[in-house]
Amino acid sequence: MSLSKSFNHKHLLSTAQLSAEDISTITTLANRFLKDGLSARNKYDYLQGKTVVSAFFEGSTRTKLSFELAARRLCADVLSFTASASSLSKGESLIDTLHTIDAMGTDMWIVRHSASGAVEFMSTFSDCLFVNAGDGQHEHPTQGLLDILTMQQYFGDLTGKKICIIGDILHSRVARSNIHLLHTLGAEVGLLAPTTLLPYNSSEWKCLRLTTVKEAIDWADCVNILRIQRERMEGGLLPSMEEFSKYYGVKMHHILQKPELLVMHPGPVNYGVEIDHDVAHSLQSVIQKQVQNGVAIRMAVMALLGGNG
Amino acid sequence: MSLSKSFNHKHLLSTAQLSAEDISTITTLANRFLKDGLSARNKYDYLQGKTVVSAFFEGSTRTKLSFELAARRLCADVLSFTASASSLSKGESLIDTLHTIDAMGTDMWIVRHSASGAVEFMSTFSDCLFVNAGDGQHEHPTQGLLDILTMQQYFGDLTGKKICIIGDILHSRVARSNIHLLHTLGAEVGLLAPTTLLPYNSSEWKCLRLTTVKEAIDWADCVNILRIQRERMEGGLLPSMEEFSKYYGVKMHHILQKPELLVMHPGPVNYGVEIDHDVAHSLQSVIQKQVQNGVAIRMAVMALLGGNG
Amino acid sequence: MSLSKSFNHKHLLSTAQLSAEDISTITTLANRFLKDGLSARNKYDYLQGKTVVSAFFEGSTRTKLSFELAARRLCADVLSFTASASSLSKGESLIDTLHTIDAMGTDMWIVRHSASGAVEFMSTFSDCLFVNAGDGQHEHPTQGLLDILTMQQYFGDLTGKKICIIGDILHSRVARSNIHLLHTLGAEVGLLAPTTLLPYNSSEWKCLRLTTVKEAIDWADCVNILRIQRERMEGGLLPSMEEFSKYYGVKMHHILQKPELLVMHPGPVNYGVEIDHDVAHSLQSVIQKQVQNGVAIRMAVMALLGGNG
Repeated sequence: MSLSKSFNHKHLLSTAQLSAEDISTITTLANRFLKDGLSARNKYDYLQGKTVVSAFFEGSTRTKLSFELAARRLCADVLSFTASASSLSKGESLIDTLHTIDAMGTDMWIVRHSASGAVEFMSTFSDCLFVNAGDGQHEHPTQGLLDILTMQQYFGDLTGKKICIIGDILHSRVARSNIHLLHTLGAEVGLLAPTTLLPYNSSEWKCLRLTTVKEAIDWADCVNILRIQRERMEGGLLPSMEEFSKYYGVKMHHILQKPELLVMHPGPVNYGVEIDHDVAHSLQSVIQKQVQNGVAIRMAVMALLGGNG
Repeated sequence: MSLSKSFNHKHLLSTAQLSAEDISTITTLANRFLKDGLSARNKYDYLQGKTVVSAFFEGSTRTKLSFELAARRLCADVLSFTASASSLSKGESLIDTLHTIDAMGTDMWIVRHSASGAVEFMSTFSDCLFVNAGDGQHEHPTQGLLDILTMQQYFGDLTGKKICIIGDILHSRVARSNIHLLHTLGAEVGLLAPTTLLPYNSSEWKCLRLTTVKEAIDWADCVNILRIQRERMEGGLLPSMEEFSKYYGVKMHHILQKPELLVMHPGPVNYGVEIDHDVAHSLQSVIQKQVQNGVAIRMAVMALLGGNG
Repeated sequence: MSLSKSFNHKHLLSTAQLSAEDISTITTLANRFLKDGLSARNKYDYLQGKTVVSAFFEGSTRTKLSFELAARRLCADVLSFTASASSLSKGESLIDTLHTIDAMGTDMWIVRHSASGAVEFMSTFSDCLFVNAGDGQHEHPTQGLLDILTMQQYFGDLTGKKICIIGDILHSRVARSNIHLLHTLGAEVGLLAPTTLLPYNSSEWKCLRLTTVKEAIDWADCVNILRIQRERMEGGLLPSMEEFSKYYGVKMHHILQKPELLVMHPGPVNYGVEIDHDVAHSLQSVIQKQVQNGVAIRMAVMALLGGNG
């Protein structure tokens, strides 16, 4: 199948760069991959003859596997390396690493980095295509896109739909990517978090501030529950996990009130903290569906950016 | 070549599930692969279009390489991950990891885990095929099968053959897998170990208890010598490595008494502890042959479980 | 394209084994690969049906990636393992690891090891082909060859050309490989280093001893600047990084005096120590070109040693 010619991006660095038409182009292609079935049987030659570098300067098995699987199903050659295994431990700079590997003949970089803006920074030093696989607290565009795809599979058009993001919004690149995309598509976004886990400027984000799980669920069509990083406790941003769970954790009695509510979580889940085990495994939860959609979205993004089609 | 239709297993979790006919089906196919020659030149399309996950939650280079090489020679796509690299370090549960990776579109799992029963447990939460690559002290079925194949290459029919397993039988999944298979094939099994390294219930295993290396070798057609884990010392199960070696280590003067004795060891070897260097490298030793047979057995098992043929 | 029949080596262990004709055979083939373009689009079937083991017993991302990329572009199956991931941590010996993996059916080994002579030692225990990817302070033949290729691209014939190697020559396998090759090709070699970082026998190496950066650059057509290992400080071989940099570091004012001087460095670079940032990124620097040439040289070496052509 030939690819859309209207998608004119070189990189996917931020969801803010995507128009509603771009988003539709990506999700349409992802849905086509899903319809064929995600399997090693179904390979596409969009990246045949291309070398994709999977560079994770911060650990993440699930995202790394998802991207590498996607790249291989598009027939790319995949070079995989992680920061701890790289020369960075010898004090080599990020840009030197980029230049060194680029010189070997590469076409596309999938980069995760703990520093916000690191992927965009790298993209200015190379002729390759870049996909941001999560940079610090900035963005995680393919996670945002797979969340959108999942919502669309249940709601269709997202115009006017109400999505509440719950949890550690301050540190979450997932939240930022979701908010951009949801606003672009005309959805309404609510935020539920302790004040210490909200960014200072979140009042400028045009999101509704909600204050309790009950209120959030009464309002929302879908809740996207973020992972609480245990490290935040040490930063003094939360009094205790128990207290967070008591006031912000989503429990069965909450979702039973609203059977049509969709429950999402980017994983990995802290059971009993931000979400109860039974909620995550309820019929309203689409967490597994999100993972599956992740491979399809990554295939679509890589094909559209670098595809031979 | 088409595959046997009589092999009706979905998983290989334990050698106890295998009939004598099943074992013969596996070793016959393995011998066919060996006859063709183990080489990247000889690929088979039994797993073409299948995605095999190699999930080692406990380190083992040789078994991991052997399985992954086998999978690739069957034309599978291989997803490889190890526990330390995975999100498990973030507290994600084993079953969450399974569900997450499954959702990406996988067909077969090769699993090693330090907990006995972990692989069977996983298999109940997934539609994929599972191969146990070693679970705690329970079983290591492909090691048992490659040991059987090696013995058959030298003895032919194993009925009535006498095999003595020597060493740390208490903690050994290799011993358990060997005993099941050898009994199924009508061989006699002897055990030689300090009492502290024998399981409480080993008297129910229908094995002959032997007490000295000399006695064991006088009795046996083949000795299968297990690796002593240095960690056992700390558990107080052995007085010292030196003492174990003195009373249970196999030395040249032992095997010179019986030139027709076959010497096996699953590796890696602790020279001078359970086996002397010269014994391991003697003409009676088939340790390298075991490794080679390992690839062929794993190819056979994976082809029979998941093969398109 | 068919391969030269005059290249009659089984292994590449040392540059001392290579005649001027051998070097020309390698660089000619490497130039052909470069002319086609280094890309996943351009694959060659020289190692089709061969299994290449990439065994790095000492960390090095850039060399490992370069070799593995090269092997895959020659259509080899690549088995990759690193020491920390291997059974070596269980006390298995190097030769046991070799025998174990060999028994799985392998054809070529790419080995890096911290011990000088380790690769040659391994080659005597196996029927496989071996490529030395750096052994202790002994040799790094493909680095030497890629340096030669880079110089030839700028100078053509190297007869009578003057190359000065600067820095930690005592511990450098790169220096040893360069010196052999340069002498074989009729170039003159100069050495600039503190006396504590020169080998005792370097006076027998038929190299000119130079004493200051200015003197070295006045004399040379090309400087090959070595990485200073920070670990050397602790060994008391250098008074301080600052002092080394002051007297032996190459700075902009040095190279501006001689615009035709070629600047090389095997990487990774310690900016501000052995070389200033601006020097490494100047128009006279060919550091990126060296990396690119590395893939081509490794493809050429592996094709000539193991090629089906």
